[in-house]
Amino acid sequence: MERHVCADCGWVHYDNPKIVVGSVVTFEDKFLLCKRAIHPRKGFWTLPAGYLEQNETTADGAIREAYEEATAEIHIRDLLAVYSVTHISQVQIMYRSILKEPEFSAGPESLEVELFDWAEIPWNDLAFPTVYWALHQYQEIKDRESFTPFSNAVGDMLEKSLEIIRR
Amino acid sequence: MERHVCADCGWVHYDNPKIVVGSVVTFEDKFLLCKRAIHPRKGFWTLPAGYLEQNETTADGAIREAYEEATAEIHIRDLLAVYSVTHISQVQIMYRSILKEPEFSAGPESLEVELFDWAEIPWNDLAFPTVYWALHQYQEIKDRESFTPFSNAVGDMLEKSLEIIRR
Repeated sequence: MERHVCADCGWVHYDNPKIVVGSVVTFEDKFLLCKRAIHPRKGFWTLPAGYLEQNETTADGAIREAYEEATAEIHIRDLLAVYSVTHISQVQIMYRSILKEPEFSAGPESLEVELFDWAEIPWNDLAFPTVYWALHQYQEIKDRESFTPFSNAVGDMLEKSLEIIRR
Repeated sequence: MERHVCADCGWVHYDNPKIVVGSVVTFEDKFLLCKRAIHPRKGFWTLPAGYLEQNETTADGAIREAYEEATAEIHIRDLLAVYSVTHISQVQIMYRSILKEPEFSAGPESLEVELFDWAEIPWNDLAFPTVYWALHQYQEIKDRESFTPFSNAVGDMLEKSLEIIRR
């Protein structure tokens, strides 16, 4: 395994996998998406999500990210999915959340924030495959009170999601 | 936030939360536990679990840990719980797993490995509160095919689990 070592002092930096926390945030039947103001994938649409901080619970992290990216106050319902994005060593913990009030605006990392009907979601301009997975998996269980959380998409859903990042 | 910076080269080491992956492993109605051969909590019983590695899925990590700690081959059923242990910035992702065959032995980080009936579990000698949570939460849903995964214990279960680490 490759490790970063400081050439002067020998400090070994262990590169641990990173944790991303976020949610599929809905209001009535609409989905809250943020257009990214930062690289990578600037100008593409994503879910409110970001890196978990030190000493933070995964749920609190998802609430913080929704506020930072969309000034949105959310209520976490339950765990939607745990994704392992192995090529970049990320674990994404995605919740099903409700927007408390239809009030939001673009935080510093967003160009725009919008509530979309399912059919109006900018499918051709999503930022990451996991955004596609989370939205479709949410849609699959949207009427269920209880379900087993999803993991990485496979088959057709995976194939379609990979078209996103070819754009 | 405190950060480690190399005094010579200025390398900033971002201390990200770490991901632990593991399982409640059962065979018929028995639970597979490992007595720790390493600090912290050497000599106390734990679930097969450990740090997720780079480029590894969370499920593969849990399978690897069961093999490393108990030479146990497991089949992952589903996600049992996601715990946020904020004071040490750990996220623990715990699965419900089945031991394929009743074959196991102590790996290098274990002193002993044993299958316990529920009533025989060494409750007074568990290594960590999250081991107590995972076992009890497993027991709560053991006959269910589908359930919403748990998060940190609260109330009475939390109180009882904290007695463990006072020993």
